[in-house]
Amino acid sequence: MTSSSHSSTASAAHPLDEAVQLTASSSSAPGQYEGQTHPGYWNMVGPFGGITAATLLQAILQHPDRLGDPLSLTVNYAGALTAGAFTVQATPVRTNRSTQHWTLSILQAGDDGAQVVTTTATAVTAVRRETWSVGDVPMPEVPAPSAQPAIPPGFGVEWLNRYEMRPVTGAIPREWDGSGDHSLTQLWMRDAPPRPLDFVALAALADVFFPRVWLRRARHVPAGTVSITVYFHASAAQLQATGTGYLLGQARGQEFRNGFFDQTVQLWNEAGTMLATSHQIVYYKE
Amino acid sequence: MTSSSHSSTASAAHPLDEAVQLTASSSSAPGQYEGQTHPGYWNMVGPFGGITAATLLQAILQHPDRLGDPLSLTVNYAGALTAGAFTVQATPVRTNRSTQHWTLSILQAGDDGAQVVTTTATAVTAVRRETWSVGDVPMPEVPAPSAQPAIPPGFGVEWLNRYEMRPVTGAIPREWDGSGDHSLTQLWMRDAPPRPLDFVALAALADVFFPRVWLRRARHVPAGTVSITVYFHASAAQLQATGTGYLLGQARGQEFRNGFFDQTVQLWNEAGTMLATSHQIVYYKE
Repeated sequence: MTSSSHSSTASAAHPLDEAVQLTASSSSAPGQYEGQTHPGYWNMVGPFGGITAATLLQAILQHPDRLGDPLSLTVNYAGALTAGAFTVQATPVRTNRSTQHWTLSILQAGDDGAQVVTTTATAVTAVRRETWSVGDVPMPEVPAPSAQPAIPPGFGVEWLNRYEMRPVTGAIPREWDGSGDHSLTQLWMRDAPPRPLDFVALAALADVFFPRVWLRRARHVPAGTVSITVYFHASAAQLQATGTGYLLGQARGQEFRNGFFDQTVQLWNEAGTMLATSHQIVYYKE
Repeated sequence: MTSSSHSSTASAAHPLDEAVQLTASSSSAPGQYEGQTHPGYWNMVGPFGGITAATLLQAILQHPDRLGDPLSLTVNYAGALTAGAFTVQATPVRTNRSTQHWTLSILQAGDDGAQVVTTTATAVTAVRRETWSVGDVPMPEVPAPSAQPAIPPGFGVEWLNRYEMRPVTGAIPREWDGSGDHSLTQLWMRDAPPRPLDFVALAALADVFFPRVWLRRARHVPAGTVSITVYFHASAAQLQATGTGYLLGQARGQEFRNGFFDQTVQLWNEAGTMLATSHQIVYYKE
């Protein structure tokens, strides 16, 4: 390999970085950014929800007035984004001594050319100090990532090819025969190709789980996230230390009722550090 | 008791209804409401967070353009409200066929007279249809409410007197001796005086738990909710059927790290129906 081709390979952007790339608008509106949906993270009728959450977090991270690191992020999926350009508006509505409160939205031109809100969000960033700390949900004892086969690529939606997933338990049902009896999934996961972990990648990883109702019922019904919240427990240094290692993700439904179920999620790194907890409320049909 | 005095008693507003009372602004801004903090729900340096969440939900419920019932609510406590008047702005930013997405904020006049954002929120309301449903987290088997003594009134903050709480396990520590070893609380609870359950009351009840860090450490450190999310699983009819009965509330911390911990909450009625699940991220000191 020549030096120049090696350099070219090394500098090629990771698909995740391409997908969350935002450009400050030439207009005078502060916190307004232009982005483009990325075909590599396409789901069935719009982008993978995790990449939308990651993009909103990216807008905060590159905002010149940001204080601290991500603490919480709530994203409401009001309507599917269409393929193409979109605008992110990120506004720090209140800045305290150690916390900062954000409201965000994604806008796209609708059929009539008028701007339509596809996504709303709120977030809190915070300056963390070292305090007494303890984890109260230890990582479950599971086989190492290398012991679990990875889901083969090409499961029908493109974004799944952007993740390496090695299910431990609760993989997607092989037969839709109505035989489901629980909603617990545990899996090792990381970006594909591997990419050093940061807050943006972590936000997306919190949303990789297939709909709990598919597992619980072993039925392939239509489903989609309505709202997701991610709480970030790790520091930038802990994410950096995690590097390109796997995360153990655990997801479970608590209540499935009249068209909506909730999902609770925990994400640990291989060292057993809880990096994030998350929950979402998900629409399902039938 | 004379007929007129009986009628007077029966028509007296419940403190909760007084606290969440909102008046549409005389100005032309749609979805703008005026409210007043209520001394009966005062916490240490501002209103009880649950009553603020309930007030925001009330703004949605009385908005003329509302579609459906509450599905999710996220409230971010950007700064403490001061005693007195406040303004709620509730905007339905996108209305779909069966879901509606809301952004909300609470504003108060600051020291210099300018309006300051104290609270931001997002919510989703939805028209629910009957579908296949199942609860995956059964209510824990615990003694009946009548078997558990209620917390005596006068614990130092006024809002606690607005709730009847009968702890089953994980009551507030009697001694701050650093002996804590878990963060699980289970308690029976309802409004005091009893009040028929509705979405507004349920939103507030999701926030009644004292800070998990107090239990986990048996140390009385400063702590306050930064952001709470409530997912509503029950229909209005199920809340009505719950009436003035008790709810079993369960709260647990998952991770306490560098100044913030998270809390997961489940709320069932006495019949064992899951009415709501909730999560919050909470600041703590030391």
